[in-house]
Amino acid sequence: MEAVVPSITQGGVGRVLVMPNLSPPISNVEMAIAYRAELMKLNSDCEYFMTLFLNSGLLNDLDSLNNARQAGVVGIKSYPKGVTTGSDGGVENYEIYYPIFSKMEQVGLSLHFHGEVPNTCVMQAEEKFRENLFVIHARFPKLKIVLEHVTTAAAIEAVKKCGPTVAATITVHHLDLTISDVVGNNVNFCKPVAKLESDREAIRSVVKSGNSKFFLGSDSAPHPAKSKATHCCAPAGIFTQPLIAPYLVDAFDRLGCLEHLESFACETGAKFLGLPRRTSEKKIILEKKPQIVPQKFLVSEAVDDYVIPYRAGQELKYSLKA
Amino acid sequence: MEAVVPSITQGGVGRVLVMPNLSPPISNVEMAIAYRAELMKLNSDCEYFMTLFLNSGLLNDLDSLNNARQAGVVGIKSYPKGVTTGSDGGVENYEIYYPIFSKMEQVGLSLHFHGEVPNTCVMQAEEKFRENLFVIHARFPKLKIVLEHVTTAAAIEAVKKCGPTVAATITVHHLDLTISDVVGNNVNFCKPVAKLESDREAIRSVVKSGNSKFFLGSDSAPHPAKSKATHCCAPAGIFTQPLIAPYLVDAFDRLGCLEHLESFACETGAKFLGLPRRTSEKKIILEKKPQIVPQKFLVSEAVDDYVIPYRAGQELKYSLKA
Repeated sequence: MEAVVPSITQGGVGRVLVMPNLSPPISNVEMAIAYRAELMKLNSDCEYFMTLFLNSGLLNDLDSLNNARQAGVVGIKSYPKGVTTGSDGGVENYEIYYPIFSKMEQVGLSLHFHGEVPNTCVMQAEEKFRENLFVIHARFPKLKIVLEHVTTAAAIEAVKKCGPTVAATITVHHLDLTISDVVGNNVNFCKPVAKLESDREAIRSVVKSGNSKFFLGSDSAPHPAKSKATHCCAPAGIFTQPLIAPYLVDAFDRLGCLEHLESFACETGAKFLGLPRRTSEKKIILEKKPQIVPQKFLVSEAVDDYVIPYRAGQELKYSLKA
Repeated sequence: MEAVVPSITQGGVGRVLVMPNLSPPISNVEMAIAYRAELMKLNSDCEYFMTLFLNSGLLNDLDSLNNARQAGVVGIKSYPKGVTTGSDGGVENYEIYYPIFSKMEQVGLSLHFHGEVPNTCVMQAEEKFRENLFVIHARFPKLKIVLEHVTTAAAIEAVKKCGPTVAATITVHHLDLTISDVVGNNVNFCKPVAKLESDREAIRSVVKSGNSKFFLGSDSAPHPAKSKATHCCAPAGIFTQPLIAPYLVDAFDRLGCLEHLESFACETGAKFLGLPRRTSEKKIILEKKPQIVPQKFLVSEAVDDYVIPYRAGQELKYSLKA
């Protein structure tokens, strides 16, 4: 937390949707309020919109969600059991949670999916999740659903096919990576894994089209370099936070769709989630001034601990104007 | 070389087809003879059948292949440019080499393919290679061709479809791994990469059927642990040599096809390549005695260099009787 939170504004970001897959997970509104206070202490230049970890404890206390939105909680995230970092307590059967989804529909909380099926080949886990999306969307048509960090042409088609209450996020690294960049390169290993060239093409196409069902999601997993520099069992996650805006403009520039950058990064997501327009007057300016991504971001000098960022050592065409 | 060569007999193996992707590659018969002499010095308990690296130098000296077979060279291996370790000087266009293939057909040398298309997604590189196999087999129907270390259902179907001069090898690790085991686990990263569950199922099925077009190929890439324990750019290759027989019997036992083990590992390949039956009277005996795969095989105490073997730390049900 101490490493990532200051890097939010450093990366040009002023508001974030905070994921709940901590250890222990953020399981109820009280925990979210306390967590938000800790984040504020570390960086008060940022707005924090909180999420809860979908869990059966909420079934016994549905009324606790009545005031969630006023308390700064905007959604609940569902992790399939065991597919990514901090998902051991994840979901095995969505029907159990229908009373929660129904309540969320009433009180205006959004449902955020890590959209992978557990115990499935990494290349097929997202595609096979589609059925869950269709079933839950059909049952709860007014529930806002975000399929987080999509990686396949199949998922993009699924989101397009659903009604206006279903959207998806796209990470900056899935604009560039394929599975070929992941094998042998733990630094590029995240879940869902980057897929085929045809999938990347579908992701790029939908971004270039300016489709408002798709907006930015970042990955700010600060896995220690030691855990990534290993021959086996590297944790899933990519650290993009401290340079997210420069990564993004670099990618959009290469794709030739800079005209969609502001809506993709700043507007569409907030609109979909019903968040107020940014209150801060602060705007960021990116200038065409090359920079090299550092090989490491220091987390703690005391323990010589650092995180290897996405595209470490590579050149980005743009820099954030201080 | 000093690490791997003693490990051949240690793994229960008495004869090997020696790959030519050294630095510099084994490019002609003289180099192969000299290399064989070095191998003999390190381990004379083993028979070495040599291969050459397919290269344009041979075009100017086709007659040098007349006596290749008598000199202990049985085949030529083709590496597509840049797809795996030591393939920088590999092939971009097969037609250039047709005069060599024609000569090989005459003098009884086999053609061994690393069957991947360069500059292609790792998941599709083998499937896309099929067309090359079909074209070259149709043009040189008497040329013995081995598609090395197949990883896809598509490649297995392709080999079945071809005439009796086309065969394939299967590694012990491709009986067990899928791409899910490769991402985040550099120790399991090799080329071609392990693919989908359906591909693994096709590999297992053809082995269980006892089809004589498919026989053992091993992977003995002794990449230093340091190069594998990294966040990026791990080299491709898996070290199975010192335990190849125990790995194999463990896998065949789990698949319930021990009755095919001897032909798969010892007979079918030699028959296909026209090699004499094993002259040595030595037989190996595997006993049902569990062992744990070491975490490391020491290469050189002097530089504290070691190699991490396949399935390091895992239990194998069988051991080689000393």
